[in-house]
Amino acid sequence: MAAKQQLKDILENWDSTREGRGLHSLIAALYPICRSITGEGLRQSLRLLQQHVPLSLCEVPTGDQVFDWTIPREWNIRDAWIKNERGQKVVDFAKSNLHVVNYSVPVRLRMGLAELKQHLFSLPETPDWIPYRTSYYRETWGFCVTQRQLEMLEEGEYEVRIDSTLAPGHLTYGEFRIQGATDEEVLISCHSCHPSLCNDNLSGMTIAARLAALLQNVPLRYSYRFVWVPGTIGAIAWLARNEAETGRIRHGLVLSCLGDRGPFTYKRSRRGNAEIDRVVAQALSRPATGHSILDFVPYGYDERQYCSPGFNLPVGVLMRTPNGRYPEYHTSADNLDLVDAGALGESLGLLLRIVLRLEKNRVCINQNPKCEPQLGRRGLYRTMGGLKDSPEREMAMLWVLNFSDGSHSLLDIAERSSLDFAVLEQAAAALEEHNLLRPAG
Amino acid sequence: MAAKQQLKDILENWDSTREGRGLHSLIAALYPICRSITGEGLRQSLRLLQQHVPLSLCEVPTGDQVFDWTIPREWNIRDAWIKNERGQKVVDFAKSNLHVVNYSVPVRLRMGLAELKQHLFSLPETPDWIPYRTSYYRETWGFCVTQRQLEMLEEGEYEVRIDSTLAPGHLTYGEFRIQGATDEEVLISCHSCHPSLCNDNLSGMTIAARLAALLQNVPLRYSYRFVWVPGTIGAIAWLARNEAETGRIRHGLVLSCLGDRGPFTYKRSRRGNAEIDRVVAQALSRPATGHSILDFVPYGYDERQYCSPGFNLPVGVLMRTPNGRYPEYHTSADNLDLVDAGALGESLGLLLRIVLRLEKNRVCINQNPKCEPQLGRRGLYRTMGGLKDSPEREMAMLWVLNFSDGSHSLLDIAERSSLDFAVLEQAAAALEEHNLLRPAG
Amino acid sequence: MAAKQQLKDILENWDSTREGRGLHSLIAALYPICRSITGEGLRQSLRLLQQHVPLSLCEVPTGDQVFDWTIPREWNIRDAWIKNERGQKVVDFAKSNLHVVNYSVPVRLRMGLAELKQHLFSLPETPDWIPYRTSYYRETWGFCVTQRQLEMLEEGEYEVRIDSTLAPGHLTYGEFRIQGATDEEVLISCHSCHPSLCNDNLSGMTIAARLAALLQNVPLRYSYRFVWVPGTIGAIAWLARNEAETGRIRHGLVLSCLGDRGPFTYKRSRRGNAEIDRVVAQALSRPATGHSILDFVPYGYDERQYCSPGFNLPVGVLMRTPNGRYPEYHTSADNLDLVDAGALGESLGLLLRIVLRLEKNRVCINQNPKCEPQLGRRGLYRTMGGLKDSPEREMAMLWVLNFSDGSHSLLDIAERSSLDFAVLEQAAAALEEHNLLRPAG
Repeated sequence: MAAKQQLKDILENWDSTREGRGLHSLIAALYPICRSITGEGLRQSLRLLQQHVPLSLCEVPTGDQVFDWTIPREWNIRDAWIKNERGQKVVDFAKSNLHVVNYSVPVRLRMGLAELKQHLFSLPETPDWIPYRTSYYRETWGFCVTQRQLEMLEEGEYEVRIDSTLAPGHLTYGEFRIQGATDEEVLISCHSCHPSLCNDNLSGMTIAARLAALLQNVPLRYSYRFVWVPGTIGAIAWLARNEAETGRIRHGLVLSCLGDRGPFTYKRSRRGNAEIDRVVAQALSRPATGHSILDFVPYGYDERQYCSPGFNLPVGVLMRTPNGRYPEYHTSADNLDLVDAGALGESLGLLLRIVLRLEKNRVCINQNPKCEPQLGRRGLYRTMGGLKDSPEREMAMLWVLNFSDGSHSLLDIAERSSLDFAVLEQAAAALEEHNLLRPAG
Repeated sequence: MAAKQQLKDILENWDSTREGRGLHSLIAALYPICRSITGEGLRQSLRLLQQHVPLSLCEVPTGDQVFDWTIPREWNIRDAWIKNERGQKVVDFAKSNLHVVNYSVPVRLRMGLAELKQHLFSLPETPDWIPYRTSYYRETWGFCVTQRQLEMLEEGEYEVRIDSTLAPGHLTYGEFRIQGATDEEVLISCHSCHPSLCNDNLSGMTIAARLAALLQNVPLRYSYRFVWVPGTIGAIAWLARNEAETGRIRHGLVLSCLGDRGPFTYKRSRRGNAEIDRVVAQALSRPATGHSILDFVPYGYDERQYCSPGFNLPVGVLMRTPNGRYPEYHTSADNLDLVDAGALGESLGLLLRIVLRLEKNRVCINQNPKCEPQLGRRGLYRTMGGLKDSPEREMAMLWVLNFSDGSHSLLDIAERSSLDFAVLEQAAAALEEHNLLRPAG
Repeated sequence: MAAKQQLKDILENWDSTREGRGLHSLIAALYPICRSITGEGLRQSLRLLQQHVPLSLCEVPTGDQVFDWTIPREWNIRDAWIKNERGQKVVDFAKSNLHVVNYSVPVRLRMGLAELKQHLFSLPETPDWIPYRTSYYRETWGFCVTQRQLEMLEEGEYEVRIDSTLAPGHLTYGEFRIQGATDEEVLISCHSCHPSLCNDNLSGMTIAARLAALLQNVPLRYSYRFVWVPGTIGAIAWLARNEAETGRIRHGLVLSCLGDRGPFTYKRSRRGNAEIDRVVAQALSRPATGHSILDFVPYGYDERQYCSPGFNLPVGVLMRTPNGRYPEYHTSADNLDLVDAGALGESLGLLLRIVLRLEKNRVCINQNPKCEPQLGRRGLYRTMGGLKDSPEREMAMLWVLNFSDGSHSLLDIAERSSLDFAVLEQAAAALEEHNLLRPAG
């Protein structure tokens, strides 16, 4: 069996733009599909990801009780339009799947403009953008249109057609697990229910797939579980089906909005100071990335469920510009132009650096705790004295030795010293080689 | 029996100016009376408050030992003046009771200007103001005069008369208790010994009386004990007589200087992070009032006694401009002009908001802790998805649900979420109605 | 036996300039001696200090194992030079002992300029300064020269001579102990191995000697142990020989760079919040000295050894401008001009104020914890009431009484009140006299 590639080798050869171009192509392939929290569009999207990583499709039947919720009927849609008196399609689902309120019931009606307008949604402030609206749990129908479309509608009778079905079926989610040296797990979750919206969340879906593909080829300490779930109901269904196994989750991240050009944003887990929270903060700080770190709040993405008090899992959210904070959010302007290959590649690179820290963080024990060991005679330290500054590598060894008393992890030492985690980890490895250090426990 | 009015109803119909006008009238009625730490002026003031709330007058006899202190003789004064050689009253107690050093012994003397001046106190920097001075525990006498009065005194012989008595009697304090659903108590204390000084502390005395009058008509969880005590010795006497019951005090406030136009100041209890400290800070922050919060220091008002280490009660001090921080402090300029009806009414309104928080703060338990409950099907949540922002009411429900794990009170959640306490409390009440939440314990 | 002088008397009569002039003279006497981590120069320096304080010279034989290290051979040097073809000495140890790389092996060689240059060290950016270099543990030789010297060297053959010896002998350190009322110890340590460098660390060596001389004449609660040790190996040797006694060390300071004109710098012990860390911070803050306080890092001076995880002693470092932060550091410009008599005297004064705090800090118990005691009838408090401000002495008594509940030391109270430690300590003493306070335990 061939020796596996190491994580640090992947990072040392990282090319954000090249990786990002691959991600952008995958987003472009997924973009036209009409996803929802159930249905064929969702299945088709997950099957497309299977070309990159062998994820499984899991089907949860309509009517299944998942905690306080019930799996709804499956929604599928073939076509939808509004025709004016002259038979012209003034709104057409074929042009953008955002035109239909997601989960609209089937409709075949004629009505006047006034009545029709009660079912139309637009964004007056951005008159060329189509809003994204859903109505999963209340039976209704509607169309989302640009403000310009709305304003051009004349008085008269309209023919309205939504060729959708709401019928017993399944909710589908994707899952992929990599077995590491231990059963302790890292959970990576992304919502996969949004139709033609690129940043939210084709960016997260594709980055998760590519991360999974990369990690399945490197030796790992943790096991990694990737889930592509419809927002809210999908995460709840996954938790309901995997409740017994959630105790293994040591760290977790929700991925979303990772393709725009904004700086990174990390939203802490409900615990606030979990290892994942500290690892991400440390990875973002070296080099400093102009990022923001936000405290947990109980709205946002599926961290709402993972961090509900009955689970309280150590799951944070990695984003660039957060949901609701960019004007294109939940509109047709969250398109292929909004997401950038370089940004996508950089996001994936950051995730690899986070994984490296999770994998390599450990508590070590100094085997020579009384005074410093003589590093010089082991070739680990300069022999000329009197210099003003020490190389970072030597300082890293002194930090690791001094604080490896059994109560400080390498992450603790990185935080305290402001040295780069990778440099500290290499120092620890060198000291371990010389039997000056050993892993605790 | 008629249904009692609710605290929140009083607050919803609050009119600071109207309430303040009533308080200002009461201050005006109390203003001319010469109070001290004992004597008829003190009794007369408390009897005047009885017209608004049925407080009891408690009498502690001269000579009683109260911890390290002894109740002094009772001081009463009828008249006092200084006459010049022409028989003109150059200083006259009838014009301001501040003219006599409080607790001056009786005097009937003739003396030259030089000797007289050793008994005169003035404020050179504010030449029209009479200072306020006392000498409770050292037998002496003196007059407080304006700097202009002092400068107009000519050489010659003066006749000095203080028609006061120092004789066995009593120290008087006022007390009023409202029995709530539990015996746990909230203590409201104000010093009531100062003569014609409005902000310090007719403002506190009258606001305490009005707060008591309002609270006796609403259903309450806590019992409330109001005390009007002479400064220092009165608080010590009260503590000595009620030592066994101090264990019931869960929260307390000293009220002083609540009528000037300055922003609010809260001085924390010695504990520093007692519930009262957090409740007041929270009440001041929503809406932000440009207030100050000060750490406990062992000088100031009667919190010195309540927070002495042998008691260490959770008692803070609510003020506007603190003692010693406004130029009129302890001078004749602390008069009816310094205190403002609007400010007085607003201070009382703040106290009601503090009481509301004390009354309504509680720890709740989410009855559906694994994932979010489906609020939409209970009519508690919007059914249209995709919107950018959530209404505050919905966010409040999510906060309450997520953090009601048995270790967070509504106050904790208010601090963490920066949402208004009242909105969170209403969210909790709605969730309790739907059996999604129940009070802990 | 004559009554001993008190520490506070010394401080009240402190004259920084006069004291500093004495220290500067002593530095001038020590300056020309060529010290190293072993050898006659080190011994000669310690003997010179014996004129001021009766310290002992301790000899550790070559080859002794001290933890991970071995005592090296003793190094002595008589002369060294480089001659050009004309027989002129172009570099001469007699002019500055910094010219030879410390611990150079004996050399008698002829070589061309190119080969010679491999053994020459200079500082291009400060062309008139000689660098300080050492090679204790790798056998080599070298000369340190000014950049101007280096540039004037012509092509040709050079004669190189280092008349040094490396032979079995001893490592020498100095030690002095003052027995106090208890066996609990304060450790004062300074590295004493640097040749002609004044701030680093003749300043520390001489201040330690003078502090020892002063303290041996005052009554003390703690015992004080002063050590003058060669850097690193000397501290390690001292710790190896005194390991059993290190448990007695309650507080410690490493002294270095205390003569330059910069503001004070304190580097915290590894513990970070040891009493010594708080005492030094408090002493520096009153009056505010524009000082810096740095967290522990595992490089610097001998705190590296005292704070190694197997010892973790509460030892900080007191400096003015820290090592490596002033341009003259480890060069011939760290000379008699760099160190200032006033600065030296002020550093010693600060040490005395630190010692005063260590000696006088204690936990007291208020004997009258319920309400305030009546200070006025004991003559401890003003009798006239109504004044705007209280004297600091009275506030100090109230602070001490309120917080002397058994869990706050005088240092805690100083930190919380921002009052001067000395004023608080005097208040405590006055209250103890009146039996209102007693020391805890």
